[in-house]
Amino acid sequence: MAFDFSLIAQDPGGARMGRITTDHGTFETPMFMPVGTQGTVKTISSEDLYAIGAEIILANTYHLYLRPGEELIAEAGGIHEFMSWRRPVLTDSGGYQVFSLADLSRITDEGVAFRSHIDGSSHLLTPSRVVDIQIAIGSDIMMVLDQCTSYPCDRPTTEEAVQRTTRWAEQSISLYGPRFTRNGYERVLFGIVQGSVYPDLRERSANQLAALDFPGYAIGGLSVGEPKNETLEMVAHTTSLLPAGKPRYLMGVGYPEDIVEAIGSGVDLFDCVIPTRNARNGTVFTSGGKLVVKNSVHARDFGPLDPDCGCEICHTYSRAYLRHLFNAGELLGPRLATYHSLYFYLHLLSEIRQVIREGSFLEWRERFYRSYRDSGTGSYKEER
Amino acid sequence: MAFDFSLIAQDPGGARMGRITTDHGTFETPMFMPVGTQGTVKTISSEDLYAIGAEIILANTYHLYLRPGEELIAEAGGIHEFMSWRRPVLTDSGGYQVFSLADLSRITDEGVAFRSHIDGSSHLLTPSRVVDIQIAIGSDIMMVLDQCTSYPCDRPTTEEAVQRTTRWAEQSISLYGPRFTRNGYERVLFGIVQGSVYPDLRERSANQLAALDFPGYAIGGLSVGEPKNETLEMVAHTTSLLPAGKPRYLMGVGYPEDIVEAIGSGVDLFDCVIPTRNARNGTVFTSGGKLVVKNSVHARDFGPLDPDCGCEICHTYSRAYLRHLFNAGELLGPRLATYHSLYFYLHLLSEIRQVIREGSFLEWRERFYRSYRDSGTGSYKEER
Repeated sequence: MAFDFSLIAQDPGGARMGRITTDHGTFETPMFMPVGTQGTVKTISSEDLYAIGAEIILANTYHLYLRPGEELIAEAGGIHEFMSWRRPVLTDSGGYQVFSLADLSRITDEGVAFRSHIDGSSHLLTPSRVVDIQIAIGSDIMMVLDQCTSYPCDRPTTEEAVQRTTRWAEQSISLYGPRFTRNGYERVLFGIVQGSVYPDLRERSANQLAALDFPGYAIGGLSVGEPKNETLEMVAHTTSLLPAGKPRYLMGVGYPEDIVEAIGSGVDLFDCVIPTRNARNGTVFTSGGKLVVKNSVHARDFGPLDPDCGCEICHTYSRAYLRHLFNAGELLGPRLATYHSLYFYLHLLSEIRQVIREGSFLEWRERFYRSYRDSGTGSYKEER
Repeated sequence: MAFDFSLIAQDPGGARMGRITTDHGTFETPMFMPVGTQGTVKTISSEDLYAIGAEIILANTYHLYLRPGEELIAEAGGIHEFMSWRRPVLTDSGGYQVFSLADLSRITDEGVAFRSHIDGSSHLLTPSRVVDIQIAIGSDIMMVLDQCTSYPCDRPTTEEAVQRTTRWAEQSISLYGPRFTRNGYERVLFGIVQGSVYPDLRERSANQLAALDFPGYAIGGLSVGEPKNETLEMVAHTTSLLPAGKPRYLMGVGYPEDIVEAIGSGVDLFDCVIPTRNARNGTVFTSGGKLVVKNSVHARDFGPLDPDCGCEICHTYSRAYLRHLFNAGELLGPRLATYHSLYFYLHLLSEIRQVIREGSFLEWRERFYRSYRDSGTGSYKEER
């Protein structure tokens, strides 16, 4: 099966529901991708991922390139074989992590030079190198190298970033084409729209990339510290510029309500470390909003994390038990909390797909906000 | 169902196979109990424990008393409800941890005074207090308070410890009886034989406790730093003194080969942190012996931890993947390694029960040592 995106339903409110087909399986959108940074969704086994209902996961090129190295993963038979995950995998280009994690990163027209945060060794990622690495890792959906701007970013720097991102996208497409088969399954390239919070630069970037006819488009350079309303405005603006027949992936977003809003603007794919990272720190997401399970108020609360949740954790364990696990520094705490929060996210997206199909997304969103309290005003600025 | 131990088979070599019945279920012996120190077998869920084939687990009274406190566990409905484990639970008396973990412990005829290693608060554990705590925790099998000697221990101190252990055992039996029902299920008390490495003091302790007609007997004061041959000599000596119709529990032992040897001396129950603690540090047990999965020799080894193992981990993941997880500091590593090593221990015991039933334990033991390399000469001195 060749990579395919088909629109199934379009809600009057702007949200859309579709289906993505890859050689490792088909899944419906909007979809949330759990983040498996180093070839593992932290604390969670692949069996858990199937049970939670994950359909596609994200892995980080930067991390896997440095450790264990893309060659070792290729030798294992690729990322699916290596981590025993038989469904689709999307990899980022590694560019974002170079800026946020590496020491001494330096960008030129050739690519991004940096020193490893693990051992200080020197590396150069070029547009072709990041595709080669992703080919070796073996992901189904790959990102081209882009220049992600930080926030705030002045207009000349943003213009330069957009220009360089387009040039690198052109190089990637001319070297590899938008899609090709290796090791018996198809790989596709997504372009990444930049432009910070400048509407006209977003438009320039989107138009230039759309002309390259990528199989899908990512919206990058957001959730890097800007206020939420700017994020959501830029998302809405960018989706309106992208071809309707291609999937749109909003990188690194976000809290449940941010995902709900972005879906309303026509986004199809999401990834974020928020559910997993928060869970490891003892904060989970529920139908009532964020829940800090470590809080002493839960010490004698023998009810489930979320009475409205159908996950195995909510059926089996109490808030009091999870609170004890976190309080005692037990590794089972992060594991159970992560399982629940990923289930919550994936179940939320499944519910949203259903209401879009029924054309009742806007009514559903109102109901959602009546029970879901704000996740807080925490910045998006997290490793993704 | 009242607590019951029945002998099913006696191997010519001294090993025995039996069945223990409790109100939370029946299991065959010899049996290994995974250690759930703080109300969780570290990294492992109760669903995992069922899947691994665990039939009974151990929980530590000292730890649970300090955090979250036995009252909270009682409020939750007991340890089975609290940690969602429906099979039998055995608790120790807490005495051992007081000596090994607490600050400023002091022993008198009344009990053991100590300061918490968590917050420095002062506590006194008496023979009745430790039973009350275990009643609140809700274990099926409880240990009376004993005075565990360290190694080496001079003869007068050992004599005093034996005398005090007997007196405390008498107090416990006279206050509670050897068995009673609370919250709808039966609780039984085990006595603990002390005597360090003095054969005549082991004999005195065993005889005095046997006279109290406990439903079962633990062998304490071993695996506290003495050479292995002394441990095994004392085990063989002590089991020969204990009533044949009662289960014998060797506390805190040990490596696979130590368990095999102790079974040959007629021991029925074991607990030890070795499989779980080693796993968290990247060392697992396999049919070939200890395997340090973190070693770089496994970096490109895409075979399972143990090709002879039937566990889910060995079916799903490679040594190279586990090595990567440990190398990258990923929490999934300790979890997968713990799962495998507990499966290995429980499967080993299951195999041993089978050969005892068939009367071929000695031949099996020879075969076992042909493939199993020594686990090393590491001291037993571990928290249990």
